[in-house]
Amino acid sequence: MSNGHIFVGEVIGTAILILFGAGVCAAVTLRHSKARASGWVVIAFGWGFGVLAGAYTAAPLSGGQLNPAVTLGIAVDTGEWGKVWVYLLGQLVGAMLGAVLAYLVYLAQFQANVPEGDDEPTPTLGIFSTIPEIRNPVANLITEIIATMALVLPILAFGLTKGLGESGTLVLIVSLLVVGIGLSLGGPTGYAINPARDLGPRIVHTFLPIPNKGTSDWGYAWIPVVGPLIGGALAGLLYHAAF
Amino acid sequence: MSNGHIFVGEVIGTAILILFGAGVCAAVTLRHSKARASGWVVIAFGWGFGVLAGAYTAAPLSGGQLNPAVTLGIAVDTGEWGKVWVYLLGQLVGAMLGAVLAYLVYLAQFQANVPEGDDEPTPTLGIFSTIPEIRNPVANLITEIIATMALVLPILAFGLTKGLGESGTLVLIVSLLVVGIGLSLGGPTGYAINPARDLGPRIVHTFLPIPNKGTSDWGYAWIPVVGPLIGGALAGLLYHAAF
Amino acid sequence: MSNGHIFVGEVIGTAILILFGAGVCAAVTLRHSKARASGWVVIAFGWGFGVLAGAYTAAPLSGGQLNPAVTLGIAVDTGEWGKVWVYLLGQLVGAMLGAVLAYLVYLAQFQANVPEGDDEPTPTLGIFSTIPEIRNPVANLITEIIATMALVLPILAFGLTKGLGESGTLVLIVSLLVVGIGLSLGGPTGYAINPARDLGPRIVHTFLPIPNKGTSDWGYAWIPVVGPLIGGALAGLLYHAAF
Amino acid sequence: MSNGHIFVGEVIGTAILILFGAGVCAAVTLRHSKARASGWVVIAFGWGFGVLAGAYTAAPLSGGQLNPAVTLGIAVDTGEWGKVWVYLLGQLVGAMLGAVLAYLVYLAQFQANVPEGDDEPTPTLGIFSTIPEIRNPVANLITEIIATMALVLPILAFGLTKGLGESGTLVLIVSLLVVGIGLSLGGPTGYAINPARDLGPRIVHTFLPIPNKGTSDWGYAWIPVVGPLIGGALAGLLYHAAF
Repeated sequence: MSNGHIFVGEVIGTAILILFGAGVCAAVTLRHSKARASGWVVIAFGWGFGVLAGAYTAAPLSGGQLNPAVTLGIAVDTGEWGKVWVYLLGQLVGAMLGAVLAYLVYLAQFQANVPEGDDEPTPTLGIFSTIPEIRNPVANLITEIIATMALVLPILAFGLTKGLGESGTLVLIVSLLVVGIGLSLGGPTGYAINPARDLGPRIVHTFLPIPNKGTSDWGYAWIPVVGPLIGGALAGLLYHAAF
Repeated sequence: MSNGHIFVGEVIGTAILILFGAGVCAAVTLRHSKARASGWVVIAFGWGFGVLAGAYTAAPLSGGQLNPAVTLGIAVDTGEWGKVWVYLLGQLVGAMLGAVLAYLVYLAQFQANVPEGDDEPTPTLGIFSTIPEIRNPVANLITEIIATMALVLPILAFGLTKGLGESGTLVLIVSLLVVGIGLSLGGPTGYAINPARDLGPRIVHTFLPIPNKGTSDWGYAWIPVVGPLIGGALAGLLYHAAF
Repeated sequence: MSNGHIFVGEVIGTAILILFGAGVCAAVTLRHSKARASGWVVIAFGWGFGVLAGAYTAAPLSGGQLNPAVTLGIAVDTGEWGKVWVYLLGQLVGAMLGAVLAYLVYLAQFQANVPEGDDEPTPTLGIFSTIPEIRNPVANLITEIIATMALVLPILAFGLTKGLGESGTLVLIVSLLVVGIGLSLGGPTGYAINPARDLGPRIVHTFLPIPNKGTSDWGYAWIPVVGPLIGGALAGLLYHAAF
Repeated sequence: MSNGHIFVGEVIGTAILILFGAGVCAAVTLRHSKARASGWVVIAFGWGFGVLAGAYTAAPLSGGQLNPAVTLGIAVDTGEWGKVWVYLLGQLVGAMLGAVLAYLVYLAQFQANVPEGDDEPTPTLGIFSTIPEIRNPVANLITEIIATMALVLPILAFGLTKGLGESGTLVLIVSLLVVGIGLSLGGPTGYAINPARDLGPRIVHTFLPIPNKGTSDWGYAWIPVVGPLIGGALAGLLYHAAF
């Protein structure tokens, strides 16, 4: 795969992933959305099927990694580091693009995010990036590290990176794996498990002109970057040792 | 595939799609339905599994496109326009047939749509066609364009149109993709993402003798036709350029 | 396949189907169940995954039809009627066995179905057999006919009966199809779509010593038998004509 | 497969299974979790996708049995008992490891399990091990025996143990089967259906320093061990006789 193909694939695939993921958070959070308050199961399946859509679309171009933690885990396992920067760049750009697309899909809802009678505007950062329920850097890091290992170790074991094009079932399984991580491990921090997924939309949130958007909370931003990177690297090491 | 096979396949497949889709909206909306008020997750999976049922059934006859936006995206990509009209005709007829079938399944519920004590009748258009939460033509169009691109670009990338018969997994994936679009991008407009899905049932709603059926809202009807067509064409162009 | 294999396969497969199906209705309905009041999505997926479990288990023995309406649709399509009676007998026996198993799983809950303070016992027929929301024989028949056609026509089109052993994905798809029928078309009558599924458990309900079990409602029992048989036969005719 | 590969595979796979399973129970139960009170459907899918993640990861090393009842059923069917002890040891160690990992993911939530105003701390055993809704040893045993047979008989019939590596769809199906067992048969006892899944986390719960953790309820602990073992053995016998 050429650098150009990889970059385009990761941009498109990660943009689709974040379009679905930020989209489902908007769907469940914002007023005047048909899916408002429809619950955690909707969020977990929305993100998971975003992986499905993004990874299948990107697969013929870049293999559809869409996540720096996955890219890092593969590099640690295989020792091939030459194209890692292309993947990471595409993932970050794609995540920013996806956040803008999700904003556009919910444009009227964001514009209506003003006081209505006794109803306060909705804080919007949670649509773009993760927010911990209990702010505790050590605990939050541990959560993100373990949850990311639970993503990357199975992906490596599935041999996803070798046979993606041949066996369509594997991407389906990864997307259901992501649903499962959301359902099971998302409670404390909102499961970033992907540095690009958190950082790209946070940058976009900082600059978008959303009424009453609230803080972009940059003080927390390093945890959903560092935690998943540690988790991805540990998964690569563990896979290399055990399999 | 002959024109006759294509027409019959698209009629049957789109009818099944709309039977499930309008059916699940009736199930969640109407009084005296066991699924009443069972939430957005039910609607999204109901529509998605309607795609599953319709597309598999139609696949050996017509390939199971079931959506003018998909047909348009394929034509823009491949440059083959000769049979487009057969697909579109079948899809519109099928969508109308499916809406009638859903009406028949919920016949007793529709007939009971009269005041009951303090309980007002349910407006019924939302069972047949889409209604935006916030009426804003520009924002509604953008929502439908992006959501349809999120449907058609992955379908093109999956190579669905080439290997439908051989690999059953692909249709399953498209149906879960549609579930994901519903969960994530359906909040603002109810995700038509298919001109036939919206227009055919709206025609049927206009003529069906439903008690207290409320408006058929033809003022909005152009958006779920034009938006998905633009989205499908853009997806075809983007796919042609990027892949 | 010998008659013995067919009979044993259909008994085991249908018993598993009804164990899951009656089980999920007990789970959602009875007091002292962890899943109480967990909603329509639970019921629809519970029945669908019952099809998954039963059909895969029965497949190597009998092909896993588990439903007289499916058996009838296949016979109408193929003209082969010689073993139909073996299938039907196995399905009815299996459905009765499955209802007994579900009763045993929820034994303590059924025994506790007595008044508790102000809380009345739960009527139990809905755990075993279907009950319409609005009692209207013509409308109920139409609902069951169309819903059964939406099951049998896709099954015939999937070629399920020819390649069950080779392609595991097809049974998965049929089970999700059943989930979809439940979500979309189950609202009015509770979607029998299978004469054995309704009749067998109703017989069992009539004889089981459940406290405060309520009526077995034999006046309605013919509709979930006749409706699905008509729907299955119509699907067989339609498939034969159109494909 | 060498004993070392089997042991490592079962440890890793069962740890992932319990990480997801105990994780989703924590997610739904504990205060300050985003998934709190999100319902039975979340629990059933969380456990099922834990099977997906764990079994796929373990498959290349040990075949991914992850459950003494499955191991016993296979041994009863095949008559090969030589490596059973390696599987059981790996499963128990893995289950304990997984419970510790789930505890670490929800560390801040467990530490916050103290009185908050009028809000009492949450009893925590239900996150680790099963608790019956109605305490009745005979009924609880019957529930676990039948539910485990509904797991092991289909797994044997799927031929899972022979073709796991070749056909990825089979593990997906087993995971959805586990979702179905949870939805349908989990109401009375919380569906242990796996002695390691219950015993390992109960040991961990006994020793973990969780504030206000409540009882570890060792009086009940034999039922989720003995019931699933009987169910697994009966399924092995039935499969051997019928197929």
